[in-house]
Amino acid sequence: MMTKDISIKEGVGVDISVSMVLSKFKTALSAMERVVGSRSTLPILNNVLIKADKNGVELIGTDLEIGIKFFIGGKVDQEGSITIPGKTLITLVNSLHGETVVLQGRGNNIEVKCGDIRATINATPADDYPILPEVEGGKSVKIGGDKLKQMLSAVDFSASRDESRQLLTGVLVNSKADGLVMAATDSYRLSEVEDKKPLGEEFKVIIPAKTIVELKRLVKEGDQVEVRVEDSQIMFVMDSVVLVSRLIEGEYPNYQQIIPTESNISALVDVQELMDAIKSASVFSVDGGNSIKLVFDSTGLKVTSEASQVGNFDGSVEAKVEGGSEEVGFNAKYVLDGLASFDTPKCELKIGSKTSPVLFTPSGVENRRYIVMPLRG
Amino acid sequence: MMTKDISIKEGVGVDISVSMVLSKFKTALSAMERVVGSRSTLPILNNVLIKADKNGVELIGTDLEIGIKFFIGGKVDQEGSITIPGKTLITLVNSLHGETVVLQGRGNNIEVKCGDIRATINATPADDYPILPEVEGGKSVKIGGDKLKQMLSAVDFSASRDESRQLLTGVLVNSKADGLVMAATDSYRLSEVEDKKPLGEEFKVIIPAKTIVELKRLVKEGDQVEVRVEDSQIMFVMDSVVLVSRLIEGEYPNYQQIIPTESNISALVDVQELMDAIKSASVFSVDGGNSIKLVFDSTGLKVTSEASQVGNFDGSVEAKVEGGSEEVGFNAKYVLDGLASFDTPKCELKIGSKTSPVLFTPSGVENRRYIVMPLRG
Repeated sequence: MMTKDISIKEGVGVDISVSMVLSKFKTALSAMERVVGSRSTLPILNNVLIKADKNGVELIGTDLEIGIKFFIGGKVDQEGSITIPGKTLITLVNSLHGETVVLQGRGNNIEVKCGDIRATINATPADDYPILPEVEGGKSVKIGGDKLKQMLSAVDFSASRDESRQLLTGVLVNSKADGLVMAATDSYRLSEVEDKKPLGEEFKVIIPAKTIVELKRLVKEGDQVEVRVEDSQIMFVMDSVVLVSRLIEGEYPNYQQIIPTESNISALVDVQELMDAIKSASVFSVDGGNSIKLVFDSTGLKVTSEASQVGNFDGSVEAKVEGGSEEVGFNAKYVLDGLASFDTPKCELKIGSKTSPVLFTPSGVENRRYIVMPLRG
Repeated sequence: MMTKDISIKEGVGVDISVSMVLSKFKTALSAMERVVGSRSTLPILNNVLIKADKNGVELIGTDLEIGIKFFIGGKVDQEGSITIPGKTLITLVNSLHGETVVLQGRGNNIEVKCGDIRATINATPADDYPILPEVEGGKSVKIGGDKLKQMLSAVDFSASRDESRQLLTGVLVNSKADGLVMAATDSYRLSEVEDKKPLGEEFKVIIPAKTIVELKRLVKEGDQVEVRVEDSQIMFVMDSVVLVSRLIEGEYPNYQQIIPTESNISALVDVQELMDAIKSASVFSVDGGNSIKLVFDSTGLKVTSEASQVGNFDGSVEAKVEGGSEEVGFNAKYVLDGLASFDTPKCELKIGSKTSPVLFTPSGVENRRYIVMPLRG
């Protein structure tokens, strides 16, 4: 034990000495921003880990749920590793101007040099920093970064914010033999997107919404993303950055059963026009839980709302309605969220009855479905 | 009394009928946004007043401190006036798209029509709405809107936020026989700007900072502004909008005495470089009330800071220093505020001693002074 203690003290990593392109260091630090916290329960997690070896400099941050490793490259004069308070380092480095930044371990400090500026930050040895799990043994697939981002963005907004319903706070990613399906629901609305091209490996995981947020920030246009999946971990390997995250464990609810298969009424509507009318209508729905009504008949679609203390609203939206008349109440936010995620000029609505889920699809797009439960009224 | 009550009810103004260019109505409403409140003490102040007569449509809002009157023009089919909940009207109108908006009084409501949209808002008769004071009898001067905005922006940020020091929460506007002077101070720093060209009338008023904020938003490039001053009120008359405000009453402190007239050391520094170094330094000054040090000697200027728990900072800034060496402590925010308000590439600093106020001026500009009290250290 004695020997080991001494060896740790010798190796506290303060002998590190590296120089990096400042803009690259800023990019790497900005990737850590929301992961490096300000918790006091485990103070070391407020730090980022800087690791220099013969391959270059790596920056690592984790909140134990998500870990991010950013490969910066740079010139290593002295290999070693050290942890530095994240917020301080990020604020300092963002305020710097110049080409190159030099980091040098000194005593219990790290010196940051850039142009005529020299700052010293109290640092901590790297020994206590948690090791990022590597996903090595599991399944591995590749997917285009743009497609990954698009599919995630088509569904992630429907995930629940209610931590007491853990399963629903994630996005289901179901890699099947015949294609890739993603879905999210908070039990009031559901979004689903499908890609017919299989990834080549089958797995079914629930990725936490927070991980999705970070992943979407890290994926750059044109990136090829390697996804590695193990029992409880998922890892996304990109060009110069790796994101590793725990998965939400459990069986995702069988949401298929609520997707309406039959409908009486269908309507074809301009997405932007419908959004505008619903936004205006929701001015008069604050009292009643953001409730608005969509009124379908052969002449078109009306959006109405009423808040007794404030006033009422009645807006006509041009629509091709077939199959009858109906009046369905909705939470305006749920309808708007879905419409905002569509990237087609028109959308189709399929209505069964006053009380059955309504299906929204971007017009002409086969692989997306958005289902909203009507309000009882 | 009876007769009067009845006449009020007959004249509740719900007979109003006007049509306006939507974009103009939006502009007018956005001018009211921060004045029309959500206080419950005097609910009518949450409303805006719409007044239609043969000259066109006027929109009026007030919080009793500031009043804004916006002339919209438009087509008046039925003269009258009515008040409408401001937040509701603003949110609704901002969500509308189209060329024209029509307002029509109906019963106790106002109907807002735009394209296929028809909203009804509960309205209130105009009778109880406070009358905006008109400043008619006082002094009147004209000033270019651009110059007015520039001069106000050169000083207003130094006004105090401390409501217990009411006098200092305003900007002093001193129209003298030999020119116009504006100043603001929170007793830790002071800014002053002067224009040699007299306005033609002498007055000395303290304008509340909130009024300045609204005024700067309302003045459009190229505007000519008529300023009318009475004992306790000031009125700014612009192209299509009038702002009237109460003045802060009392005698503004004689700040001239703290403006240093002699100095030992002078320094000529690049404004942006100094700001960058101070921003970086303030990363290490959070503990100590944002304190940084400027260290002057014949070789140049250093910016230093230290926070024992975090680290320390040392940055050199190229500077032409004459007259000796000194080390002066500052609140970083105060120095940064002043430098940010300068629009010259270089600035001059005049230092008397460690404890005397330091004078900052934009280099080559005669009419501006910024004085910061040093920290005791």
